[in-house]
Amino acid sequence: MSGSTLGTLFTVTTFGESHGPAIGSVIDGCPPGMLLSEADIQPDLDRRKPGTSRHVTQRREEDKVEILSGVYEGKTTGTPIALLIRNEDQRSKDYAKIANSFRPGHADYTYLKKYGIRDPRGGGRSSARLTAPAVAAGAVAKKWLKEKYGVVVRGYLSQIGPNKIEFKNWEDVEAEGNPFFAPDLARVPELETYMDKLRKSGDSCGARINVVASGVPVGWGEPLYDRLDADIAKVMMGINAVKGVEIGAGFHSIEQMGTEHGDEMTPEGFLSNNAGGILGGISTGQDILVSIAIKPTSSIRLPRKTIDVEGNATTIETHGRHDPCVGIRATPIGEAFLSLVLMDHALRHRALTLAGATVR
Amino acid sequence: MSGSTLGTLFTVTTFGESHGPAIGSVIDGCPPGMLLSEADIQPDLDRRKPGTSRHVTQRREEDKVEILSGVYEGKTTGTPIALLIRNEDQRSKDYAKIANSFRPGHADYTYLKKYGIRDPRGGGRSSARLTAPAVAAGAVAKKWLKEKYGVVVRGYLSQIGPNKIEFKNWEDVEAEGNPFFAPDLARVPELETYMDKLRKSGDSCGARINVVASGVPVGWGEPLYDRLDADIAKVMMGINAVKGVEIGAGFHSIEQMGTEHGDEMTPEGFLSNNAGGILGGISTGQDILVSIAIKPTSSIRLPRKTIDVEGNATTIETHGRHDPCVGIRATPIGEAFLSLVLMDHALRHRALTLAGATVR
Amino acid sequence: MSGSTLGTLFTVTTFGESHGPAIGSVIDGCPPGMLLSEADIQPDLDRRKPGTSRHVTQRREEDKVEILSGVYEGKTTGTPIALLIRNEDQRSKDYAKIANSFRPGHADYTYLKKYGIRDPRGGGRSSARLTAPAVAAGAVAKKWLKEKYGVVVRGYLSQIGPNKIEFKNWEDVEAEGNPFFAPDLARVPELETYMDKLRKSGDSCGARINVVASGVPVGWGEPLYDRLDADIAKVMMGINAVKGVEIGAGFHSIEQMGTEHGDEMTPEGFLSNNAGGILGGISTGQDILVSIAIKPTSSIRLPRKTIDVEGNATTIETHGRHDPCVGIRATPIGEAFLSLVLMDHALRHRALTLAGATVR
Amino acid sequence: MSGSTLGTLFTVTTFGESHGPAIGSVIDGCPPGMLLSEADIQPDLDRRKPGTSRHVTQRREEDKVEILSGVYEGKTTGTPIALLIRNEDQRSKDYAKIANSFRPGHADYTYLKKYGIRDPRGGGRSSARLTAPAVAAGAVAKKWLKEKYGVVVRGYLSQIGPNKIEFKNWEDVEAEGNPFFAPDLARVPELETYMDKLRKSGDSCGARINVVASGVPVGWGEPLYDRLDADIAKVMMGINAVKGVEIGAGFHSIEQMGTEHGDEMTPEGFLSNNAGGILGGISTGQDILVSIAIKPTSSIRLPRKTIDVEGNATTIETHGRHDPCVGIRATPIGEAFLSLVLMDHALRHRALTLAGATVR
Repeated sequence: MSGSTLGTLFTVTTFGESHGPAIGSVIDGCPPGMLLSEADIQPDLDRRKPGTSRHVTQRREEDKVEILSGVYEGKTTGTPIALLIRNEDQRSKDYAKIANSFRPGHADYTYLKKYGIRDPRGGGRSSARLTAPAVAAGAVAKKWLKEKYGVVVRGYLSQIGPNKIEFKNWEDVEAEGNPFFAPDLARVPELETYMDKLRKSGDSCGARINVVASGVPVGWGEPLYDRLDADIAKVMMGINAVKGVEIGAGFHSIEQMGTEHGDEMTPEGFLSNNAGGILGGISTGQDILVSIAIKPTSSIRLPRKTIDVEGNATTIETHGRHDPCVGIRATPIGEAFLSLVLMDHALRHRALTLAGATVR
Repeated sequence: MSGSTLGTLFTVTTFGESHGPAIGSVIDGCPPGMLLSEADIQPDLDRRKPGTSRHVTQRREEDKVEILSGVYEGKTTGTPIALLIRNEDQRSKDYAKIANSFRPGHADYTYLKKYGIRDPRGGGRSSARLTAPAVAAGAVAKKWLKEKYGVVVRGYLSQIGPNKIEFKNWEDVEAEGNPFFAPDLARVPELETYMDKLRKSGDSCGARINVVASGVPVGWGEPLYDRLDADIAKVMMGINAVKGVEIGAGFHSIEQMGTEHGDEMTPEGFLSNNAGGILGGISTGQDILVSIAIKPTSSIRLPRKTIDVEGNATTIETHGRHDPCVGIRATPIGEAFLSLVLMDHALRHRALTLAGATVR
Repeated sequence: MSGSTLGTLFTVTTFGESHGPAIGSVIDGCPPGMLLSEADIQPDLDRRKPGTSRHVTQRREEDKVEILSGVYEGKTTGTPIALLIRNEDQRSKDYAKIANSFRPGHADYTYLKKYGIRDPRGGGRSSARLTAPAVAAGAVAKKWLKEKYGVVVRGYLSQIGPNKIEFKNWEDVEAEGNPFFAPDLARVPELETYMDKLRKSGDSCGARINVVASGVPVGWGEPLYDRLDADIAKVMMGINAVKGVEIGAGFHSIEQMGTEHGDEMTPEGFLSNNAGGILGGISTGQDILVSIAIKPTSSIRLPRKTIDVEGNATTIETHGRHDPCVGIRATPIGEAFLSLVLMDHALRHRALTLAGATVR
Repeated sequence: MSGSTLGTLFTVTTFGESHGPAIGSVIDGCPPGMLLSEADIQPDLDRRKPGTSRHVTQRREEDKVEILSGVYEGKTTGTPIALLIRNEDQRSKDYAKIANSFRPGHADYTYLKKYGIRDPRGGGRSSARLTAPAVAAGAVAKKWLKEKYGVVVRGYLSQIGPNKIEFKNWEDVEAEGNPFFAPDLARVPELETYMDKLRKSGDSCGARINVVASGVPVGWGEPLYDRLDADIAKVMMGINAVKGVEIGAGFHSIEQMGTEHGDEMTPEGFLSNNAGGILGGISTGQDILVSIAIKPTSSIRLPRKTIDVEGNATTIETHGRHDPCVGIRATPIGEAFLSLVLMDHALRHRALTLAGATVR
C-alpha cells in the first residue's frame, strides 16, 4: 500500500477516484521563487480532458484546477503545492450493469481481489481519469524545467492501431483540427475514418506514443538503481494501459551490431542517438527518446466472456462513455510523467554536483 | 545520488566496483526463520559468472559469496543479511589504453561528466560485474518466494542478434552444453557458430531475454505508482544494456483489437494472457511475463570514432576481456531482479491484507 | 525539501498555510474495509481548534473536515484518503506590522533565509495551524488502532509554566469546564487564575504534555534505525514548539541505578515501566509513555530586541491573536502524532510476522 | 522491517551482530572528489572501541576498518562506500547461561517476541557494538562537513550517575588520562573513584551526553516533518540506551517565560541560544545544542527477577564483559549520529537553494 507518491526530492502524491467528490495532487519539493498560477497548469489539463472530439469519451469535465497552497503573491514558496480538481459529470448509474462482473483486460478483477472492496463507478481509483492530477503536477515540473534549463518536453502519437505515423513536425502535433496529437496533419483524415469505423464497430485499438525531452544537460540519473532510464520506465509503465517502454533504439537494438548501435562521438557531438540520450542510466545531453505501447481499451460494447463476482460464467458488454483508443489522449500524459521524473532527477543531481564541487 | 538501494520493505543495497577490493550487497527486511546458507546463493552466481564458455568474457572470477550477517544457526534472523564477494582477477592495465577516451555506447562519458571523477578499471561502478551482488540477493528472494508461495521465477534467451529461439521446454534452458540459456537445445550448435563468427569479427550483438514468474497469487502491486508492472519495468530497465521492457503482449498490443487483447475469463480461469499476469498494476494470478531488449556490448575491438577526455577527436579499439553479447549471461540477472521486486511486493501486499482482514 | 510526508506504509502528506485558501492531508496506506466518515475525525479537530476558551487564540475557525477520496459507501477502499479543511477567519492585515522584522524564537527568520521568500500571514507554513491536518489524519489512525488492536491513545497536560499537575484520572482530562486537558479537575481554577494573569501580562509560558498508548502489542518497531522510540521522538520533536522528548523514565534515568531502572519481569508481567513500553526500539506490550516539553509562545505583546529583514536593529511587539501557551491545545496533537507512528509500525510489523510465520 | 538505513540523500545502511563474522556499513550519496582513507575513519573508532580503560568492557576489539568501495586513487567517486570491520574477540560461551532468560531492561525479550528467533551472543543485533559501523560512517560525514563548511561536531560527558560535570573546555575532553570525555580534567579522579566503586558493586549507572555542532549555516532542515530537530531526535533516541533528547533549553523551556526563552536578535547576532540553533525545524546559524539521557546498563552482576523463554519465574545475574556505564563510550557515538543527520540535510538543502536560486 502507500504507493501513490512519486519521486524523491520532487514528490507528487495524488488522490481521488473517477466518480468521487474530487481528484488532486500534492507537490512537495518545488523550489521557491517560481511564478505560478492556474494559468500555467490549465492548458495541459485541457489537452488531456475528455469530450474534445468525437473520437474520445463524451464525459463532460471542465477539469478546472485550483491551487490550494504553496503559492504566495504569485510565486512558489518552497512549501507543498496542492492542486484540486472537482469531479462534475458523473453518471454512476452507467456502471450498475457491470458492477457485478469483470471486464476482460480491466483492473476490476484485481482491485476487488486485492482490496476486498471496489468502487465500480468509472473504475474508481484505476480510472485513466486519475492521470489528470499527474498532468497538473507535470505542468509545474515542465515550467520549471523550461525556465531553469530550457528543457522542452513534447510528445506525439506515432501509431494508432495498424496506422504508423511518421514524424513530420511539432507544429502539426498541436495544429487545429488534429484531435490525435499526430505529427503529420495530412494523415488526420485517414485516422478519423479509421476511428469512426472502429467506434461504430464497438471494438477498440492500441497506440504508440513517443515522448522527447530536448535540452536535458549531461549528468542526470542516479545509478545503480535510480537510473534515469529506470525511473522513466517505472512512470511510463505505470500509466494506464501501457504494456511496453523503449528508450532510444529500444527493441530494435536486439538486431543491431555494436558498430551500429554505439553512438560515435566527435568534438561536435554524437553522430547518432540509439542510446535515446541515456548511457549507464545517466543523461548524455542528447534528446531523451521514449516510446510506449498502449493496449486497446478494455471497456468495449462487443460481448466478452467473463465471470461475475461469485465466479459464475457470464458475458459482459460495456456501454456508457469510453475512449475507443486511450492513446488519443495519452500524449500530454506521457509528457507529464517524463517531466516529473526529469525534475526529480534535476534536483537530485544538483545536490550531488554542488556538494561535490567545492570539495574537489 | 544515493540511488543504490532497491525496494521498500525488502531492500537491497549494493556496493563495489569492477576492480575494487570487493563487491557485495546488504539485504534488509528478509523475514526471520528461513534456512539460509551460501549454498542457496552460489548456484545463481555460478550461472552468471564469467569464464564458463568461450562465448563470454574470459575473466576468471570464482564469485564465492560469504554471508557476513543476518543468519544464526543456519536461519535468517530478520536482521540485515550482508553478502560479500571479493574481486580476484583484475587486469587494470588493460584499461590504461582507454582510460583517456570514451567508448561509444558506454557509460564512460556520463560517469565522468556526472561525478567529475571516474574509475576506468573495467567500467568501475557501471560494470555489468555489479549485477553479481544483485544476483546473490535475488537468490535469497527466490528461495523465500518458492518456500512460502511456491512461486518459481525462470528465464531464457529468446533471441540473440537475428536468431529468434522458440521456447521448447525449461529442461533445455539449463541443459549441459547449453551456454546460452536457450530454450531449445537443438538450436545451440547454430548459435555457437554465430557467436564464434561474431567474436572473430570483433563486433558484438544484442539479445532478448524472457523471464516468467509462475505461482504469483492475485493481488500483488501497489497502485497508483508502485504498481507491480511499474516496479518490474524499473528494475529491468536498470539492468546494464537494457533498452526496452515489455509485459505480456507488450508492443504487439498496439495492433491488437480490444476483442483480441482483453483476456476473457471463465470459472476455470483466463483464456489467454496478453496482460502478462498484471492488470491495473496488480497481479492476476496468471504467469508474470516479462521480456527485455539488450543492446550490443559497447566494448568492441573494431575501431570507432570518439573523443578523448579533453574533447579531441580520436578513435578507440577496446581490447581486453569482454562479452561479445552480454545477453548470454543476462538470464540469471533478469530472474534475480524480478525476484527482488516480487518479494518486496509480497511483503507490501501482506501488510495490507492482513491489516485489512480483521477490520472487514 | 519534500519533507512534508510522514510514514513508510501508512503515509500522511500535509499541505497548506495558516492564511491560504485551505489546509489538508492525504493519507496513503489506510487498510480497506474500515467504516469512516467525517464524524470520526471532527471530534479531535474540535478538541484542537482555536477559540474554545479565553485561554487560547480567539481566531474563529470551525475546522470542518471534508473527505474527498478513499471512502466508498462509508468504508475505506485502501486508496488515498484526502482530507480538506478550508481556512475561514484570516486577518492577514494583523501581520502587516511584523512582516518586515523577525519574532525572537519564531521561524520567521529561518524560513526567509532558507526559502528566500516568506508568507508572513500567521506564520504561513510554520504556523501551529498546520497541526490540524495531522490531527485529522491521526483520528483515522486512532480509530483503526482501537478497532483492530484495542489500542487507546490518550494525553494530558502535566505541567503549565511552573504548575505541575499530578495525574488523577482520565475522566477529568475531558471533563466539562476543563479547557486545559488537565488530569485533575480540582486544579483547573488555579490554572485559570495563572493563565489570566499571564495573558494580561502580555508574556507566554511553556508546558509539558504526556501521551500514553495502552494496548500496544509486543513487537512493534523496526531496529536498528526505524525503532519505535526513534520514530516517536521524530514526530514529537517535530511538533511546533517542542524542545524535548522523553520515553519512560527519560532524563530521570540518568540518576537511576541499573537495579532500579531495569524493569523486572514475572510470569504476571513487568513490575515497573521505566522503559516506557519500549526496549531495543521494540514495544514490550506495556503502556507506551511519552512526555514532551513545549516552549513558550514566541508571539508576545511585550517588546523584544530584534532585527528587520535588512538586518537593522529594531524592537517588535506582536499583537493580533495568539495562544499565550500553545501547550493548552497540544494534547490532541500529541495523541495524533503518536497514533500515526503506531499505525505505521503496526503495518510494518505485520508484514514481517505474517511473512515470517509460514516459513518458520 | 528494513529499518537499517538512515538518511535521504546521504544514506547509511549498517549490518552485523555482536558475535557474527563482521559488522559494517554502506554509505550511499557521499559526494565525489573528497580525499578519504581508513586513516580518516579509524580515530573515531578508536575513541569508541572497548578495552581502553578499566571503566569499560574488557572485550578486545581492534575495530580496524577496511574501505571496500567508493574510493579510487584516494578520492571518493560518488559511488557507495562500504566499510568493513571484522569481529575478533567473541566469547559466545559467556552467554550460554543467559540464553534462556531475559535481562530486565534489555532487548532480549522484545527481539525474541518480534522475530521468533534470537541471537543471544552479546545481544546480537541489539548490541551497542553495532554503533561502530555508524561511527565509521559518521567520520566520513564529519570530514566532509568540516572541509566543505567548517562545521565542527564535538561532544562531552556532562553527567554520570549523580555527578554533574560543568563544561570547562574542549581540550580537557580529549586530554590524556581522561577516559570519560569529561569536559573538566580536574573532575576525573573523583569520577574514577565513583566508577571503581560502582563496578565493584556489580550495579550500573546512567549518564548525560551533550553534543554541539558549530558552524552550521542557516537554512538546514526540511519542514514540516523532516525538520532538522526532528531528524536529530530520531537518530539520538535511536542510540542504544537513550531515553530522552533535548534541543537547546529542552525541558527547562517548560518553566521559561516567552520573554526569557525567545532568543533576541541584534545586527551582531543572537543574544542567547535557548533554541539550540534550530527554529521551525531549520538551523539558525548558531551552535546546534543537543543533550541526551542514557539509561544504566541492563547487563549487571546483581541478581534480578525475570522470566525464562518458557515464561517461568527465575532470577538472572549477568557476568561476562559489560560496560558499567555505556555513557562513557557514547560521546563519539553522539557526534557520529549528529554528523550523519547534518550531512544529509546539507545535501537536501543545497538541492533546494541551488535549484531555486536561478529561478528567483
